[in-house]
Amino acid sequence: MTLQEIGQKAKEVSHVLGILGTEEKNRGLRAVADALVSGQDGILAANEKDMEKARENGMSQGLLDRLKLTPARIEGMAEGLRQVADLEDPVGEVISMKQRPNGLMIGQKRVPLGVIGMIYEARPNVTADAFGLCFKSGNAVILKGGSDAIYSNLAIVEQIRKGLSDAGLPEDAVLLIADTSRAVTRDFMKLNEYVDVLIPRGGAGLIKTVVENSTIPVIETGTGNCHIYVDETADLSMAADIVFNAKTQRIGVCNACESLVVHKNAAEKFLPVIRERLAQKHVEIRGDKRACAIEPSFAEASEEDWGKEYLDYILSCRIVDSLDEAISHINRYSTGHSEAIVTKDYESAQRFLNEIDSAAVYVNASTRFTDGFEFGFGAEIGISTQKLHARGPMGLKELTTTKYIIYGNGQVRP
Amino acid sequence: MTLQEIGQKAKEVSHVLGILGTEEKNRGLRAVADALVSGQDGILAANEKDMEKARENGMSQGLLDRLKLTPARIEGMAEGLRQVADLEDPVGEVISMKQRPNGLMIGQKRVPLGVIGMIYEARPNVTADAFGLCFKSGNAVILKGGSDAIYSNLAIVEQIRKGLSDAGLPEDAVLLIADTSRAVTRDFMKLNEYVDVLIPRGGAGLIKTVVENSTIPVIETGTGNCHIYVDETADLSMAADIVFNAKTQRIGVCNACESLVVHKNAAEKFLPVIRERLAQKHVEIRGDKRACAIEPSFAEASEEDWGKEYLDYILSCRIVDSLDEAISHINRYSTGHSEAIVTKDYESAQRFLNEIDSAAVYVNASTRFTDGFEFGFGAEIGISTQKLHARGPMGLKELTTTKYIIYGNGQVRP
Repeated sequence: MTLQEIGQKAKEVSHVLGILGTEEKNRGLRAVADALVSGQDGILAANEKDMEKARENGMSQGLLDRLKLTPARIEGMAEGLRQVADLEDPVGEVISMKQRPNGLMIGQKRVPLGVIGMIYEARPNVTADAFGLCFKSGNAVILKGGSDAIYSNLAIVEQIRKGLSDAGLPEDAVLLIADTSRAVTRDFMKLNEYVDVLIPRGGAGLIKTVVENSTIPVIETGTGNCHIYVDETADLSMAADIVFNAKTQRIGVCNACESLVVHKNAAEKFLPVIRERLAQKHVEIRGDKRACAIEPSFAEASEEDWGKEYLDYILSCRIVDSLDEAISHINRYSTGHSEAIVTKDYESAQRFLNEIDSAAVYVNASTRFTDGFEFGFGAEIGISTQKLHARGPMGLKELTTTKYIIYGNGQVRP
Repeated sequence: MTLQEIGQKAKEVSHVLGILGTEEKNRGLRAVADALVSGQDGILAANEKDMEKARENGMSQGLLDRLKLTPARIEGMAEGLRQVADLEDPVGEVISMKQRPNGLMIGQKRVPLGVIGMIYEARPNVTADAFGLCFKSGNAVILKGGSDAIYSNLAIVEQIRKGLSDAGLPEDAVLLIADTSRAVTRDFMKLNEYVDVLIPRGGAGLIKTVVENSTIPVIETGTGNCHIYVDETADLSMAADIVFNAKTQRIGVCNACESLVVHKNAAEKFLPVIRERLAQKHVEIRGDKRACAIEPSFAEASEEDWGKEYLDYILSCRIVDSLDEAISHINRYSTGHSEAIVTKDYESAQRFLNEIDSAAVYVNASTRFTDGFEFGFGAEIGISTQKLHARGPMGLKELTTTKYIIYGNGQVRP
């Protein structure tokens, strides 16, 4: 199939999916879950082909682990789909309905986006996850996974389509671009006629490529240079717990803490505490001059460090004279993902919440909570760091748009 | 000033604007309104320079009229700003706030987008309108108007900045790109570091250029190939009133009707009625074969006609066998702006509302109502025909985003 044909099919089927009832969609999700499990032999064999090629190409252990599928992981994908079936259907809700003086009743109704394009790397589980969320929200999805996972993705999509067909639902709800060449990917990013939104998932490089080359509206996800500010009045033991958690609980994720900002009046007491605490996990701390003066064991930070998402056991550390300086430092260097203040002061807490320009702003809690499941959405397609459409964790509702529905009785404009 | 400097200034000032109180913003808007009126001599002189150049370049009468400013039009711009001051401030509303099982209180708060870029053509009133809406919603705005209106725009922006300064508010809330060259415009569309969203306003060509070249998230506005479907059961006199209104009340606008779709069982009666009615305004009707068979005076439509936004006294006309055919024809050719059905049948009305994939879908009313003022928003920055972020008329609320604010008491992720 050519890209044009894929686009056309997706657009056509999106009109059907948009008016499916909730029960039909849930039945489809459960049928697909069953098909994944019953077809797991084929998926595992295909995955082994990808693994072999990846080993030959010298893929790192971490990436190999992300690529690998097991019966338990396939059961996990299936279970994920069943959970999505249990979530509330956002489609069809009428958010508001008002009568105008001329008698027109104007309402705003939640409807699917239409066709969603996903571009991602070598994590085959994204294939099933993305399908599940797009399908439940009434959207068609066109998937473009990494070439390293192509056999796995083909096999997973085959089972998804089989499940849909078993349930008497249109298979074209999911379409995979089998040609993973760069040229096709570039063309995909310009398929405005058929695709309503493109969501890239993966590393900073992938996301940058999509943002720079797509003419389709993009939702930028991911990068998190998250800060924690320890205020003058902070409970230092709480601050140490929060920084330790946000830095070390899982290092490779976008909501991990990358930079510590400390009020000068708290620094002398807090730096030794946090140094010792983070030493348990061998975290390297890179401080500014004042931090290094208090803790000579810190490495010296360069200007580059302030803007860095390490995704590693490294933390930058800066001393500030005031809350104002903390806020302007954070607004300058953060990627707008998640930031936290630890404080006992009411005014500082309120100012931080108001003035920090990020998707999620915390008082006295770890930045690690920025996540669709932790926020109670029951699912997550990504975390938006842009301001348009959706900001922060994106669940089913964020995969919808609205349309105005207007009931008249002959009104014309005077 | 270089583009980089303009971007930087806008970003900096956006942090200040984002936390201004409603009263301060309203005071600023009223001061700017006063400054426009008291500085009108300078604005009119500058506008005359633009007009002279435009006449020399042979600009058409219609465009000259859009470019021209008069004392009454300047008073109109000022009055527009005073009206925006009277509108409700969307910023700061907490849309939801829920407690999670771990005690975190997670809320979603409405905040400004940050920095809005506007690219538009030779209508100097957009300069004041766009400033007013962006300022009231707490955003900084970078304006890039057409070169034909550059002197007018410079003079208007000078008065806006004077008004802001009179009110003790930051002048950089509005910044104009004085260099209207193509190269600078292209660079502006890639200023992702500083600009959060780009809104093009103007003809289809301008919007296409921005969509294809911008790496900043764009809100696509404008193009409207709007359909009216006259159902089998329609009240034909109501249908004639609605089609006449939507086609002829104002022809050059995006919510005007461009295509008429008629059920075969209504065609024999309705076509003569609508032909006669539209003849009052000398509207040319281009029909498909079946329509031309009933009304030989109709011109024959080509395939191209179905997708066309005429913005002229022309209407295409197609006969369909069923509601299904009407819906699929409209979903295929419409630009997703506004479509209407005229019907007495409950089921047809509901199906049309559900299945037509457009920003605004009407039953028994003219498409001409798709407009921020008619919808009761009190203002409009444009009409979005995309699905991301905003769909349909965009008022103040659509110039905001949200952020999550999270109140904790020491929570860390297990």
